[in-house]
Amino acid sequence: MLVTELIDKKKQGEPLSAEEINFFIKGYVNGTIPDYQAAALLMAVWFKGMDYRETTDLTLAMAHSGDVADLSGIPGIKADKHSTGGVSDGTTFIVAPLVAACGGKVAKMSGRGLGHTGGTLDKLESIPGFSVNIGIKKFAEIVSEAGLSVIGQDKELVPADKKLYALRDVTGTVDNISLIASSVMSKKIACGSDAIVLDVKTGNGAFMKKAGDSVKLAKVMVEIGKLAKRRTVAIVTDMNQPLGVSVGNALEVREAIEVLQGKHGGNLKEAAFTLAARMLMVSDICDAESDAFGKLEEALKSGKALSKLAKMIEMQGGNPDVVSDISLLPQAAKKIAVKSDKSGYITEIETKNVGIAALMLGAGREKKEDEIDPAVGIWLGKKHGDYVKRGEELALFYVNNEKNLEDAISVFKSAYKIEDKEPDELPLIYTVISE
Amino acid sequence: MLVTELIDKKKQGEPLSAEEINFFIKGYVNGTIPDYQAAALLMAVWFKGMDYRETTDLTLAMAHSGDVADLSGIPGIKADKHSTGGVSDGTTFIVAPLVAACGGKVAKMSGRGLGHTGGTLDKLESIPGFSVNIGIKKFAEIVSEAGLSVIGQDKELVPADKKLYALRDVTGTVDNISLIASSVMSKKIACGSDAIVLDVKTGNGAFMKKAGDSVKLAKVMVEIGKLAKRRTVAIVTDMNQPLGVSVGNALEVREAIEVLQGKHGGNLKEAAFTLAARMLMVSDICDAESDAFGKLEEALKSGKALSKLAKMIEMQGGNPDVVSDISLLPQAAKKIAVKSDKSGYITEIETKNVGIAALMLGAGREKKEDEIDPAVGIWLGKKHGDYVKRGEELALFYVNNEKNLEDAISVFKSAYKIEDKEPDELPLIYTVISE
Repeated sequence: MLVTELIDKKKQGEPLSAEEINFFIKGYVNGTIPDYQAAALLMAVWFKGMDYRETTDLTLAMAHSGDVADLSGIPGIKADKHSTGGVSDGTTFIVAPLVAACGGKVAKMSGRGLGHTGGTLDKLESIPGFSVNIGIKKFAEIVSEAGLSVIGQDKELVPADKKLYALRDVTGTVDNISLIASSVMSKKIACGSDAIVLDVKTGNGAFMKKAGDSVKLAKVMVEIGKLAKRRTVAIVTDMNQPLGVSVGNALEVREAIEVLQGKHGGNLKEAAFTLAARMLMVSDICDAESDAFGKLEEALKSGKALSKLAKMIEMQGGNPDVVSDISLLPQAAKKIAVKSDKSGYITEIETKNVGIAALMLGAGREKKEDEIDPAVGIWLGKKHGDYVKRGEELALFYVNNEKNLEDAISVFKSAYKIEDKEPDELPLIYTVISE
Repeated sequence: MLVTELIDKKKQGEPLSAEEINFFIKGYVNGTIPDYQAAALLMAVWFKGMDYRETTDLTLAMAHSGDVADLSGIPGIKADKHSTGGVSDGTTFIVAPLVAACGGKVAKMSGRGLGHTGGTLDKLESIPGFSVNIGIKKFAEIVSEAGLSVIGQDKELVPADKKLYALRDVTGTVDNISLIASSVMSKKIACGSDAIVLDVKTGNGAFMKKAGDSVKLAKVMVEIGKLAKRRTVAIVTDMNQPLGVSVGNALEVREAIEVLQGKHGGNLKEAAFTLAARMLMVSDICDAESDAFGKLEEALKSGKALSKLAKMIEMQGGNPDVVSDISLLPQAAKKIAVKSDKSGYITEIETKNVGIAALMLGAGREKKEDEIDPAVGIWLGKKHGDYVKRGEELALFYVNNEKNLEDAISVFKSAYKIEDKEPDELPLIYTVISE
């Protein structure tokens, strides 16, 4: 087989066979196919696309390009949850304990934050002592016993995705649905779960800005899941404003704890419940959403979900007391109020810039090797549709290092559009796509 | 400027500016732009194309990526002739002497043969003593004095084309009109001529199989010539059978000499006259084709053209006596008759396979580093539309090494379709495209 033949086929819009796709992925990972031929093929894919079958074959070839986690020793259906990335999205810390409290098994492999979006591993590591490098054996043990565990993605998982993603990033081939879907799903499949609930973000803080594109991506991923024999559901949710009211690692953990304590409602709780309900349904614990919502509300009120979170924290080396005493989380040296320059309704929030402002305070990374500060971030006093008076507090900045403070405030303020007319409410859940 | 921005622009079908194209060619030649980004951009160009302006800017950027020959010291209009490659095409050895005999200046830089097509340099080197490595100064001297010279393309000419062609060859981006046209025209422009006559071959022995594609390519190249201020004419000619009756280096030189001696007519002479007439027209020596044809016939009959060929051979170190005594050319050890297996009209000749059969005898190269045998090749006894009897001679093979002889005969015979019904005559000149 010659890679030039694959390129020619795809150029003409013909589908590639599973054998051809495997040949490409194997050759690219072991270095017999050079970057320039991979780049040409990716660009041909960008123009001509891949059908569901091809995208699934690509996903599976990538998933099996390195180690694949074996969770078969854990009894029951293991469910994973994945978000395509947003701002102020601490749903994992609410969803996983809720599902575990209802009898589900949540085995989650997560990544770190990059750019304006946060990462689950970074957030968890803000809990004193918490370790995400526990090894697959311990991970399986914790899932068995506590019902939930989060582990860092092993270096040997999906090497094809690492190599291809780096190439796509510099060859203009990031923005293709088949390539995005196979990148996400190959990682999920390599993580070994039986069921996958996907939170596909849409809006100005997401990688997909348009709801139509997000729905398309969600459909492709669900189709891949089906063909790859993984129960898969995708929920398209809004990212035209931060999901919760906190942006920053310890701050987002604190907010999640407060939701589990019953102190908060709002979008974060609603999104978490929607995701958790689907987790219960794909785990065969509930048949319908209404049934699931009842069980989840009970798990929250009884304190069972909060206990599950404490159990996981304890088993992963962290201090479980944080769930009752949030002052045990890292604290920033200063809180600085950011006030509104004008009166009116908040009609638009450039969500990405809110994430960037938090990054500038030290909550995120620009480059992979950057260190983050777990304590810093932003608490949002006002959200979309709220009325704000001139001089009123728009947000509270949690600050340790004031180096970029002024720039961060300016980026943050420029993200808000304040107008006289009250805007329409933003939708939260756009659609749910299942097999 | 970022190359990823160029890739994104081209992906969206937007034209690239001259500045962007120069940035790309410079960066690619000096190595700051890696192969994988160039491959992605080439594939985007394959899908979205380039307009005339872009293709011309690409051509000029490539032409100026290395040395450019300066022929301004030679008085008058210097004309070059270029064929896109065919089988049994020794027109250069007829056209250049004819044009020089009529007062034109032919300054031609040529390449070597690769695959099934022959190369002018290889054919000239079959003349004992003839050198194509004469340096640009001597070349200019010979053009001034004799009116014609052929030189090997210097290594430092058009490095961008060398690098891009090698990349296109392995990334499925050879078959794009803008990329083909810029490759041909950048070399012609770097060679320093004022006027260019292009022989664009079409048919089963050419790189472009369909007349429509050849006409398109011819138009793009003429347009580039116009925008680059070179008088350019393109003639689309047939390559659905070998042009002359000889395939092989010394054999093709012999056939050209025989045409100049007035011993041969046929397609080779007609094609050569058509090209030579256009050379005279772009050189301002003749206004109309009819006028040019008269002058050319006179140059042939008077023996002036043959003298010009002898003069060039002498000035480039070869034995000029070959023009009157073809036995001075290298002779093959054996002549083997290849006979027809059936009676009928020759309705089709798979021209490429005739070239390959000659290559198998040693007349051509499969790989760049292969050595060729100047004496061997094929003389064609029958051509398209001829009637042949079973057992009658179809061709004469000139052989030194019989290693591949049987295979070569089998490839050659399989190239001929012999049927009962007389076929329509093939056209020779499809169209002439000028500014």
